Amino acid sequence: MGAAQSFRELCDRTKNTNVRLSLPAVCIVWQTAMIILFGVFIRYNEESDTHWVEYRKENNLSDIQNDFYFRYPSFQDVHVMIFVGFGFLMTFLQRYSFGAVGFNFLIAAFGLQWALLMQGWFHSLDYTDGKIKIGVENLINADFCVAGCLIAYGAVLGKVSPVQLLVLTLFGITLFAVEEYIILDLIHAKDAGGSMVIHTFGGYYGLSISWMLYRPNLDQSNRLQSSVYHSDVFAMIGTLFLWMFWPSFNSAITDHGDGQHRAAINTYLALASTVLTTVAVSSLFQKHGKLDMVHIQNSTLAGGVAVGTAAEFMLMPYGSLIVGFCCGIISTLGYIFLTPFMEKYLKIQDTCGIHNLHAMPGVIGGIVGAITAAAATESVYGAEGLRNTFDFEGEFADRSTSKQGGHQAAGLCVAICFGVGGGILVGFILRLPIWGDPADDNCFNDEPYWELPEDEEVVPPMLHYNNHMHNKEIAESNFTVEQN
Amino acid sequence: MGAAQSFRELCDRTKNTNVRLSLPAVCIVWQTAMIILFGVFIRYNEESDTHWVEYRKENNLSDIQNDFYFRYPSFQDVHVMIFVGFGFLMTFLQRYSFGAVGFNFLIAAFGLQWALLMQGWFHSLDYTDGKIKIGVENLINADFCVAGCLIAYGAVLGKVSPVQLLVLTLFGITLFAVEEYIILDLIHAKDAGGSMVIHTFGGYYGLSISWMLYRPNLDQSNRLQSSVYHSDVFAMIGTLFLWMFWPSFNSAITDHGDGQHRAAINTYLALASTVLTTVAVSSLFQKHGKLDMVHIQNSTLAGGVAVGTAAEFMLMPYGSLIVGFCCGIISTLGYIFLTPFMEKYLKIQDTCGIHNLHAMPGVIGGIVGAITAAAATESVYGAEGLRNTFDFEGEFADRSTSKQGGHQAAGLCVAICFGVGGGILVGFILRLPIWGDPADDNCFNDEPYWELPEDEEVVPPMLHYNNHMHNKEIAESNFTVEQN
Amino acid sequence: MGAAQSFRELCDRTKNTNVRLSLPAVCIVWQTAMIILFGVFIRYNEESDTHWVEYRKENNLSDIQNDFYFRYPSFQDVHVMIFVGFGFLMTFLQRYSFGAVGFNFLIAAFGLQWALLMQGWFHSLDYTDGKIKIGVENLINADFCVAGCLIAYGAVLGKVSPVQLLVLTLFGITLFAVEEYIILDLIHAKDAGGSMVIHTFGGYYGLSISWMLYRPNLDQSNRLQSSVYHSDVFAMIGTLFLWMFWPSFNSAITDHGDGQHRAAINTYLALASTVLTTVAVSSLFQKHGKLDMVHIQNSTLAGGVAVGTAAEFMLMPYGSLIVGFCCGIISTLGYIFLTPFMEKYLKIQDTCGIHNLHAMPGVIGGIVGAITAAAATESVYGAEGLRNTFDFEGEFADRSTSKQGGHQAAGLCVAICFGVGGGILVGFILRLPIWGDPADDNCFNDEPYWELPEDEEVVPPMLHYNNHMHNKEIAESNFTVEQN
Repeated sequence: MGAAQSFRELCDRTKNTNVRLSLPAVCIVWQTAMIILFGVFIRYNEESDTHWVEYRKENNLSDIQNDFYFRYPSFQDVHVMIFVGFGFLMTFLQRYSFGAVGFNFLIAAFGLQWALLMQGWFHSLDYTDGKIKIGVENLINADFCVAGCLIAYGAVLGKVSPVQLLVLTLFGITLFAVEEYIILDLIHAKDAGGSMVIHTFGGYYGLSISWMLYRPNLDQSNRLQSSVYHSDVFAMIGTLFLWMFWPSFNSAITDHGDGQHRAAINTYLALASTVLTTVAVSSLFQKHGKLDMVHIQNSTLAGGVAVGTAAEFMLMPYGSLIVGFCCGIISTLGYIFLTPFMEKYLKIQDTCGIHNLHAMPGVIGGIVGAITAAAATESVYGAEGLRNTFDFEGEFADRSTSKQGGHQAAGLCVAICFGVGGGILVGFILRLPIWGDPADDNCFNDEPYWELPEDEEVVPPMLHYNNHMHNKEIAESNFTVEQN
Repeated sequence: MGAAQSFRELCDRTKNTNVRLSLPAVCIVWQTAMIILFGVFIRYNEESDTHWVEYRKENNLSDIQNDFYFRYPSFQDVHVMIFVGFGFLMTFLQRYSFGAVGFNFLIAAFGLQWALLMQGWFHSLDYTDGKIKIGVENLINADFCVAGCLIAYGAVLGKVSPVQLLVLTLFGITLFAVEEYIILDLIHAKDAGGSMVIHTFGGYYGLSISWMLYRPNLDQSNRLQSSVYHSDVFAMIGTLFLWMFWPSFNSAITDHGDGQHRAAINTYLALASTVLTTVAVSSLFQKHGKLDMVHIQNSTLAGGVAVGTAAEFMLMPYGSLIVGFCCGIISTLGYIFLTPFMEKYLKIQDTCGIHNLHAMPGVIGGIVGAITAAAATESVYGAEGLRNTFDFEGEFADRSTSKQGGHQAAGLCVAICFGVGGGILVGFILRLPIWGDPADDNCFNDEPYWELPEDEEVVPPMLHYNNHMHNKEIAESNFTVEQN
Repeated sequence: MGAAQSFRELCDRTKNTNVRLSLPAVCIVWQTAMIILFGVFIRYNEESDTHWVEYRKENNLSDIQNDFYFRYPSFQDVHVMIFVGFGFLMTFLQRYSFGAVGFNFLIAAFGLQWALLMQGWFHSLDYTDGKIKIGVENLINADFCVAGCLIAYGAVLGKVSPVQLLVLTLFGITLFAVEEYIILDLIHAKDAGGSMVIHTFGGYYGLSISWMLYRPNLDQSNRLQSSVYHSDVFAMIGTLFLWMFWPSFNSAITDHGDGQHRAAINTYLALASTVLTTVAVSSLFQKHGKLDMVHIQNSTLAGGVAVGTAAEFMLMPYGSLIVGFCCGIISTLGYIFLTPFMEKYLKIQDTCGIHNLHAMPGVIGGIVGAITAAAATESVYGAEGLRNTFDFEGEFADRSTSKQGGHQAAGLCVAICFGVGGGILVGFILRLPIWGDPADDNCFNDEPYWELPEDEEVVPPMLHYNNHMHNKEIAESNFTVEQN
């Protein structure tokens, strides 16, 4: 015991979690770079520029037809998912709520700026003047891009430093923009809700990084790698806002009119049926049939991930229910059997179980999308509806739906490759001993990176796991101990 | 004392809260049934179908005139009220937050699917092909329908099993759809915000069930039937989201244009004035004039309930303020005097006081609606405005406003009858000893149905009411005890 | 020590925090006055009145062009900021969460009614019939007006009684309406997001009041003037909803079309860059580079305040980033150096640091607005765009942009004068010994004004600062004490 003790202290000393120089340096330098790049490249598009007044009249439009009114409500819902949804979903750990909400906030705020540039160069570059013209749709896409990195954060939650997270985000956004360009533009696959582009990529990106950063002695932090009653309630805030606004997520950038309308309906239904199967499986596999909060907090969302690609297609209401039905079961079983297996045999430590919530459902979503696309017929969609839904225009005018199905599948493969490959690459970089990551026995703990409220700091290490004890109490309890 | 003890243990043994078979069975079977019924009956309507492109051109519409853009923002607000609003409002109990948020989540997710079918058969059935055609308005109505059952949940909170809640919801939705059809279609009463259809029905439905499930020895759980400091703060999340989004609730399905606009304004004003009178009465009836969180959490919402019917009428801003003024007073007095009276003399145990928040204000809302309708004149509404507001078209073209007032009152009676009658019937079913409900001394406790975080489980029963004690502490305190 | 003790008890006795008569009286009387005034003055405008049907046809409009659909989603976001954003941001104190959320709720609900009247008389009075005609834009402006008072509340948080807060609000709204009329109508300055009108005014109004109410012995409450772990997490709910919805705040009442679109983009970008510089400075100035929750909770919002005025101008994306960059640094430095300085030397006790979050960034916002306006050119804005953006119409048709810049600066001065002057005046009134404010050693404590959950009340004063101790524990710990 004493030996282990001294060894642990040794580790501790070798780890320096002081980020007083690196964190401010990275933030200031990168933010300055953003300002310069925005100055050179980014301008308002014709709908957010003061010239809209003339543009509107020329095209005989009403103000209400500005894209802002089609997409802004969905944008705000997505925004809530990114910052409150992802942020609070990760507060379930008893002593890592500051890191969960705070670092989520930090990397999302940085990521969306870099995403506007990266995606802009690929998608919104105006070749007449070499500027990126942005509007509300770009803001939504930037939030989407960030989501990929926040998913990855879920796998390494509590085991990395804020500086590592910023590096993870910088590379994550870059890889995302490239794979997105390949999948959506080159392969011309459709992926409205990002089952492939966001969830599959983000999931495998995070899992590969976590595999590269494997910590054999993580069990030393076991006592902190669990929730307490009220931290589970905080996490439910994240779960519910993700669940409620997912229809907006999947419909945010789909076609005006029926596209957004249908995507919202399909997502709403898929999520509803996921909840019931999640509860069923959670109860069935626990002793005494008790429900496990981990499943309720996470697996209930799997349906939204899995209809991401097909949401804008004619998946049909019952089709959405079926997808949700299956994902609730698969995702919950993943938490019960797969996550322990992966940690034990594959050396992948997945703090939030993103493999069950994002990676697997994302792959299912890609497959569902490919099948739905391949099965699309003019009799169901209508001639114009079919062209409109799959954008069979320009060079893709004569693509058949079966061919489209194949390209959807190809897109899925690209997402997986970028996720795994990019994750291994970035994981290798993050292993450098310069990033200020915590020692094995200091993981899942806000203490290294946050000034904690006084009533916590005075707690001697031996009692440190105690959440709510207070100075006076401790004084006493110690006294009692001495007494004995 | 020893006798009571052994008797309690006896009860305990007779109660089996293991739902490991029943809960999964119900979830899987019902969800499968939903998939089959959706497959047979439910399709997209012309605004969410890919044929919209053609439909739009035929009718010379712009995409922005798709109903999605009129109602989706309101829908999302209503969605938040259902899942976060109702869910968190019920987290005020110190040890029942998992059940409050989690079961609310479960029954709402099931209920909205069943509601789409039930309401669809009555309202959205396309007789040409026998299919129910759904769009965003159906989603809103499904959420409304669910609200009725969640209100009922408030009365039995902490005293029933999840299986009982699913049964309560299945019958509740069914009854709701029927009474709604009678009130809105046959009687042709107007009820935009559902004062009658949702709140009056839901309130009396829940109260009747609670009366049927009366527990004489519930005082054995008294120590858990109270809040702690932070659980009251969690509950305020629910209160505020309900309060803020209530204008969207009452305006979500009203007429495009002035209808939605006016309903939102009226609700906004009624809620504002309710807050002041609630605070006044709460302070006036407490010793030292201290405010009671129960009143702030609940009575401040009564105004929104009570303008539900009249919100779309020309209630006038001052009219809304008056309604809110009265409801704040009545609802708060209800919590202070009526709730204890009902428990003692009427044997109705109303955990959340839904009688004060939904039933009474709902009835007031129905009466206000009847009066406002009867008092409507062409001089105030304008000829077209009057026809438009009350849908005096087709068979109702020549209905007078005074006659409409009478029909509004008739609608209120129908809602009460369905609530009381349905509640007694369902309560009778729920008394069967097969549903896994908790023992009297195990109510208001998450322990029977949830895997609780470790730091809770180790607490011995005698100390079980202590939220934040930790293993070590207990070890000591026990030691001290032995010492003495 | 004994002397100090007895002196403190003396103070205590002299302070009577019983508001059982004053609070109900004020609420009932003022609400009654509101009903009468609304009855005399307030009616629906042509877009929320039943005559809209005819109005629409006369003007050949579609229902979707009703202002409701342009502004309602933004209104709801603003509404969330007022009630959840401000309310929860102030829950960071360990024992004042009820007061933070509850009193915020109370004064906002009262304030918005009074604001509808005050602003209505100045801006929406229909001279044909002497009525104020309200629509959704009036609701937004009422919420804005309330924001000014909630900012002021932040400075005196925990040190005043609810009655004082209502008085603060009554006068605050009145002053707001006047300075707003002078700045926007007479001076014709533009201030879409209210950097000057809302934040500068509200900030200095609150600081002046706090200066007038200076408490030399406030250190007696020091033990309560700090957060605990979970109260900081609650506060993050407020921070995030403010941060996410700020783009809606700044764009809620700007011009239809490009105006709202551009304001949202600028705010989104400014806020993003603020987060990075806040984190940088927070880490740089703390020992071991740890982050301080106070900065993350507050300074990350400064960017939104500072682009309030210029958000609707052609500030350019990089311009927004620069504003956010500077404000994150200045605001965080303010918390580290300025707040202690102000308390020590200027006798200004600023509980929430509103000087760093609202006053300073507000002034910066006013200056940025003046510069941006003065620098506006037709080549950038386009002839029509320029006229449209600055409303150079009617009597202001021939105003030059440089002249506009001067008027913007003048507007800023007016806001500061009204804030300081009004604050001193109201502070003087609030010093009267009739308002039931708490004793110095009872500040930052919910106990005087709220019925606290049982497990709290039984705690003897000596242990009162302990959040989570429970009856039994205390019995023991006391016992132990006696033992010694």
